[in-house]
Amino acid sequence: MWNEIPGGVCAAKGFTASGVHCGVKAGGNPEKNDLALILSEKECTAAATYTLNRVKAAPIYVTMDHLENGVAWGVVANSGNANACCPMSHENAQAMCAAAARATGREPEDFVVASTGVIGQTLNIAAIQAGMPQAAAALNADGSDAAATAIMTTDTRKKEISVAFDLGGREVRIGAIAKGSGMIHPNMGTMLAFVTTDCAITSDMLSEALHEVVARTFNRVTVDGDTSTNDMCVVLANGMAGNQLIEWKDDGYAFFKEALEHVCRALARAIAGDGEGASRLVTCRVEGARSEESAERLAKAVVGSSLVKAAMFGADANWGRVLCAMGYSKAPFRPEHVDVAFRSQAGEILVCRQGDGLEFDEDQAKEILSQPEVVIAVNLHEGEDAAECWGCDLTYDYVKINGDYRT
Amino acid sequence: MWNEIPGGVCAAKGFTASGVHCGVKAGGNPEKNDLALILSEKECTAAATYTLNRVKAAPIYVTMDHLENGVAWGVVANSGNANACCPMSHENAQAMCAAAARATGREPEDFVVASTGVIGQTLNIAAIQAGMPQAAAALNADGSDAAATAIMTTDTRKKEISVAFDLGGREVRIGAIAKGSGMIHPNMGTMLAFVTTDCAITSDMLSEALHEVVARTFNRVTVDGDTSTNDMCVVLANGMAGNQLIEWKDDGYAFFKEALEHVCRALARAIAGDGEGASRLVTCRVEGARSEESAERLAKAVVGSSLVKAAMFGADANWGRVLCAMGYSKAPFRPEHVDVAFRSQAGEILVCRQGDGLEFDEDQAKEILSQPEVVIAVNLHEGEDAAECWGCDLTYDYVKINGDYRT
Repeated sequence: MWNEIPGGVCAAKGFTASGVHCGVKAGGNPEKNDLALILSEKECTAAATYTLNRVKAAPIYVTMDHLENGVAWGVVANSGNANACCPMSHENAQAMCAAAARATGREPEDFVVASTGVIGQTLNIAAIQAGMPQAAAALNADGSDAAATAIMTTDTRKKEISVAFDLGGREVRIGAIAKGSGMIHPNMGTMLAFVTTDCAITSDMLSEALHEVVARTFNRVTVDGDTSTNDMCVVLANGMAGNQLIEWKDDGYAFFKEALEHVCRALARAIAGDGEGASRLVTCRVEGARSEESAERLAKAVVGSSLVKAAMFGADANWGRVLCAMGYSKAPFRPEHVDVAFRSQAGEILVCRQGDGLEFDEDQAKEILSQPEVVIAVNLHEGEDAAECWGCDLTYDYVKINGDYRT
Repeated sequence: MWNEIPGGVCAAKGFTASGVHCGVKAGGNPEKNDLALILSEKECTAAATYTLNRVKAAPIYVTMDHLENGVAWGVVANSGNANACCPMSHENAQAMCAAAARATGREPEDFVVASTGVIGQTLNIAAIQAGMPQAAAALNADGSDAAATAIMTTDTRKKEISVAFDLGGREVRIGAIAKGSGMIHPNMGTMLAFVTTDCAITSDMLSEALHEVVARTFNRVTVDGDTSTNDMCVVLANGMAGNQLIEWKDDGYAFFKEALEHVCRALARAIAGDGEGASRLVTCRVEGARSEESAERLAKAVVGSSLVKAAMFGADANWGRVLCAMGYSKAPFRPEHVDVAFRSQAGEILVCRQGDGLEFDEDQAKEILSQPEVVIAVNLHEGEDAAECWGCDLTYDYVKINGDYRT
């Protein structure tokens, strides 16, 4: 088991971070950090998952290139501009790594690079180059907060978490920061999540663990069904915990993967709950399925449905939309076996049994659905498997934020 | 070629229609028609497409059963309740047909039956049975308007159209009514569309034409990505035009199909433009594609993207979201070849050439995007094929309508 500890992305031994304002976005808030650095004092094995969008931002390609050898030392990231679909995007992503390398005494290839913000406008690389020395000077073991702030766009809350656990007598730590908010429908990646650990683990095992975990955490989130061009989840492991190197899928691997899954699930839930304009986190849990895959597909269709999301905003127990979304998910199930309940800290109410609506207390349902976290609980009564997916409600503020985000 | 003529679903020879208020929905507006009848004075060959949602409303199954022999005489439909996922749904769908048969002197199996409205509440069949004699008495050749009104839910505009064309010296007519609004993402069907024609055509040819046309019209519409449980598109052909029977894919078939496609496209565009809360019709036209299939997939991803839809609401020329949506559509294309322009009655503006953003006049773009019909024009520069899909913007009113639709 693991304990949650403070420190965020700097919790693991040997990692420092920083976040500064350099002015990426013309007319941006001068108080808002927009440039983040994360650095390890030792070389790290590294693994990443990336967006499957066919239109990929330049930083994705540059990072893929830099991680081809499976090692890295740090991360450089900016908010305020996605560095996607614009002139000089590839050159500017490389220039960001070069500036980070100069300021820290490393090589450009040692850096993972990421950008988030508006698509299609040329990156203000001069501002980033000018701000880099300040970012490097600010690197410190308490820098997780500043870095987490620097990658936020329309996020309203910082997303960071860290855990410690024992591996053969050695304390191993995992820490992370992430950003989410809009254009969130990850597919083998997520908006931006940077995970650090002092665990000694091979690049192969790290990649294996990350891919297994991302499939069950970030890839089960949807805010608006739009898979971003810039999604990236990276984990860096510097081995400084001194545990016996994880080379196989042994108990150590299982412990590490479990802790990594806890970290990623917490961030995934935070991203869903802080979706653009969201007033509540909506979880759909599908149980009694014949396979985890079909449970996941059903749950994701439910949290992805615009009509379910609008009903959750209105705290309206419109469970017919839940069944409708399950029906078009392309997962097999028998509608006439399905139970649906709504649950939150205010209680639980069964609204549909064996596919037919029940009489229920509308006031009680309203009370349950008015809480900041709501669970849509579905039982298929067909098997033993289950899966949970996370999303948020569809609100006036989502429309407002996205009706005029760019200008 | 065809001419648009008045008459709607009664334009073709031998068809009458009616719409009355019977009180399906407790506390509903007593002025609002909620029960529609369409009847032919001769037996019709009939074809239909249905929702592919795994959760299908009872009227879908009953209609499938009644059309197994390829013939029908009429349609009975109600709004105010979807007759889906509720006790007695199958029995009540059959009872609707039986009531229509009693009131018109026909057999229950002669009727197509359809319902639209809230899912999960038991249908008030007594109200429908009580209202049926009045509906039957009101059947007349000017009844298209009343019937079109009776199938509306959150629709703000009636959807009806009719055309006439010449087939070997005989005038043939096609007329139709439809309803759309929310839960619109048809898949081999659409919300509700009832098409009548006096064309003489075999059931096989009618079905072939309908399936080809629906794939290129209704199936290219999306309002909110939610495929309904009640989608149905039915065409009834009574042969009273006296044209030579269409039995093969000859010229007559081609003329008929072209006219049918015009009718269905007009209704599809009307459904998109009157999507729940919509302030404008958004068309995405993809040209220069290697296949019509990939053009359609790309265009549908663009009009289906919540972020594109919100940008259209804000008249924001955020074309990066257009490329992003194309990127996750799973259709092949080269981002570095793509041009994007916005076009409307106020003009046209190119915003992206060969995958990179252009400098453009923001005021001109705003003016173009503020019109009631907007086209997002994409050129892939890879081939000769093209496709158009239709949707609408995502507005505060969509959220408002769906945050509290049920109660």
